[in-house]
Amino acid sequence: MMTSGTARPAMRGLAAAVLLAGALSAPAQRGALPVPPLGDGPWEFPTAERGLDIRVSVVTKGLFHPWDMAFLPGGDILVTERRGQLRIVRNGVLDPDPIPGAPVVHAVRLSGLMDIELHPDFENNRTVYLTYTKNLNPEPLEVATTLARGRFVDGRLEDVEDILVADSWPGNGGSASRIVFGDDGYLYMTTGASNGNAAQDPSNLRGKVLRLTEDGDPAPGNPFEGRAGYAPEVYSMGHRNTLGLAFNPVTGELWNSEMGPNGGDEVNIIDAGANYGWPDISFGRSYDGPFQSALPWREGVTLPVAHFVPGISPSGLAFYTGEGMPQWNTSAFIGALRVGQVQGTGHLVRIFFDENGNERRREALLTQLGQRIRDVKDGPGGNLYVLTEEDDAALLRIEPAD
Amino acid sequence: MMTSGTARPAMRGLAAAVLLAGALSAPAQRGALPVPPLGDGPWEFPTAERGLDIRVSVVTKGLFHPWDMAFLPGGDILVTERRGQLRIVRNGVLDPDPIPGAPVVHAVRLSGLMDIELHPDFENNRTVYLTYTKNLNPEPLEVATTLARGRFVDGRLEDVEDILVADSWPGNGGSASRIVFGDDGYLYMTTGASNGNAAQDPSNLRGKVLRLTEDGDPAPGNPFEGRAGYAPEVYSMGHRNTLGLAFNPVTGELWNSEMGPNGGDEVNIIDAGANYGWPDISFGRSYDGPFQSALPWREGVTLPVAHFVPGISPSGLAFYTGEGMPQWNTSAFIGALRVGQVQGTGHLVRIFFDENGNERRREALLTQLGQRIRDVKDGPGGNLYVLTEEDDAALLRIEPAD
Repeated sequence: MMTSGTARPAMRGLAAAVLLAGALSAPAQRGALPVPPLGDGPWEFPTAERGLDIRVSVVTKGLFHPWDMAFLPGGDILVTERRGQLRIVRNGVLDPDPIPGAPVVHAVRLSGLMDIELHPDFENNRTVYLTYTKNLNPEPLEVATTLARGRFVDGRLEDVEDILVADSWPGNGGSASRIVFGDDGYLYMTTGASNGNAAQDPSNLRGKVLRLTEDGDPAPGNPFEGRAGYAPEVYSMGHRNTLGLAFNPVTGELWNSEMGPNGGDEVNIIDAGANYGWPDISFGRSYDGPFQSALPWREGVTLPVAHFVPGISPSGLAFYTGEGMPQWNTSAFIGALRVGQVQGTGHLVRIFFDENGNERRREALLTQLGQRIRDVKDGPGGNLYVLTEEDDAALLRIEPAD
Repeated sequence: MMTSGTARPAMRGLAAAVLLAGALSAPAQRGALPVPPLGDGPWEFPTAERGLDIRVSVVTKGLFHPWDMAFLPGGDILVTERRGQLRIVRNGVLDPDPIPGAPVVHAVRLSGLMDIELHPDFENNRTVYLTYTKNLNPEPLEVATTLARGRFVDGRLEDVEDILVADSWPGNGGSASRIVFGDDGYLYMTTGASNGNAAQDPSNLRGKVLRLTEDGDPAPGNPFEGRAGYAPEVYSMGHRNTLGLAFNPVTGELWNSEMGPNGGDEVNIIDAGANYGWPDISFGRSYDGPFQSALPWREGVTLPVAHFVPGISPSGLAFYTGEGMPQWNTSAFIGALRVGQVQGTGHLVRIFFDENGNERRREALLTQLGQRIRDVKDGPGGNLYVLTEEDDAALLRIEPAD
């Protein structure tokens, strides 16, 4: 029970008073400033950690709004583009032709071809997983986040089949998806539910983290297995839009980065059966102004391990396991899309967690480049890889400077 | 009652695992980057509002860690310096000699001479109010936030007397103070209590907003008047360190900006008798890592209208009432001290509240100058004035560009 006056304050008497001021009801806002063109690099930048300067190199430009990357055993890199193309970087050179065989996607804003993940035994079975937004019906529009499986053989995708089609929605609002294999051999897949109440509906696959077998079936031992009214695929619920998903290599925990409303972006530690509160509980405000929730917490809701106010428009999440930059081994890295003078420049956020798992500080990396960041991945060779989010986007490599 | 797993997650098993990684227990962090030298200006900058470019001019340099300013009827400007000097800018020129008669202060870090406020009838009675950190005992050190009153006559302070000495503390940790007169004729004064539990002790004057008569007595009608165990001066409680205090001219509400712990800076609407939670409730983490509170809210605690995660080290708070920049008339302006690559550059934060009093967006102003900002004030002539926080600090004027 709440006593009056303890929740977030609503403004009292302002609306009436402002009528006198005039012309304020629809203030004109300049759009975000243009993203500066990316040079050819490489660049060397200092960091907040003593003894660590980094070199940032362009692996390739020429990508169109990429979403995710997968590092192949031989060193080649697969990159998804949201418009529906799967690209490949061979020996550091982007093939101008997309990989044939990718599924047809519904591509608009935050919908389209999304994540790619190699099967743990990819070297033998050549199996890859993709998530994408599937067009189930064009008019009236009905789309669904979908998990597809195929094989990457001889430079093409073969035997691509949908193995999980989540609950559909009318296509309003984007819905991000990320997938990652756990050490338990199961596939963790995220679905978004920015609008409506699907994230709190345990029978609906939207706004969830799902835990699946390699065939797309509910993983045995899932937290709501056999519970009436609960979809057996559900691992956790109450997520708005997960933009990043990775296992913390130090703790073994699954972490996500989540796009909240205005001032409500989150980093969560994903626990089996937990509820992260969307849309009932949030630190942020709806984009038309009011707080998303009168209180920032309620019984039964798991709080984020970190959040962002104001928001950063978070994207991919990664942990760094390389040896070259050991100062970064317990940190979480999150891409940030925001650009322009209103929101600050796109950059790579580093949240430094100490040996007890407590946040100590945050560092803004790559601010010098001013690019919107779409994804960050712990790549081969002890390097961190970053995708920018542009019409002419780049794949960047971060390594220690000499 | 709480169910397990719903509060903020503690890291599980990380400490042990990290022993393997080694050398992470005391990571070396580079200090904040040096603040770039301030040029001579003026500068013109675009803003987020269409049709509004601003011109920023240097009124004067040569101030040493100033804290507050007061605009005299004839156009001169009094400026407090934390080391204990009261300065004056006459016809736009800083007098090299301080105003004689200022109280002797305990000046170290966030202690010293702080706010200055003119009596509402200053033109007739020449009365000014100052807050400062008073040294009550040198060894063992005992200091107290103190309100002094004097008269500014013939270029000097006269008849200066302490009219309120708040509860003392051993001088550890700074304690900011701001004062402002309300339309009710009473003086609102803030006191800090970063350490310990004084902010939750209603009999202690630290960590509070006080409401006082012009003689420093408890204002009649104060919310805890006559209540046993409550100091009659107390207007609101549970404040960590108020760095800015101003009346919202549109709503008539009293607002503060409050320095929280790591990631817990706040802007609050100050209600009579309300409790803002420090140190029991906060969005932030203690500087050594753990969350300040397991939950971000409890019954009886009033939540901020805006907060900052990560923190910005907020300073002064102001509202703009001029006619030249009407797009700014419902916004709150807050100085930010943070510099360097870890935390971002010092700047002036604008939080845009719409006609319903809802936050819609935040804008970082003056980022181009890279200065730490100590105070911001709505000044004469429809201009906003800003003090930087440096050894060679500047008073800046912001007005619409032509």
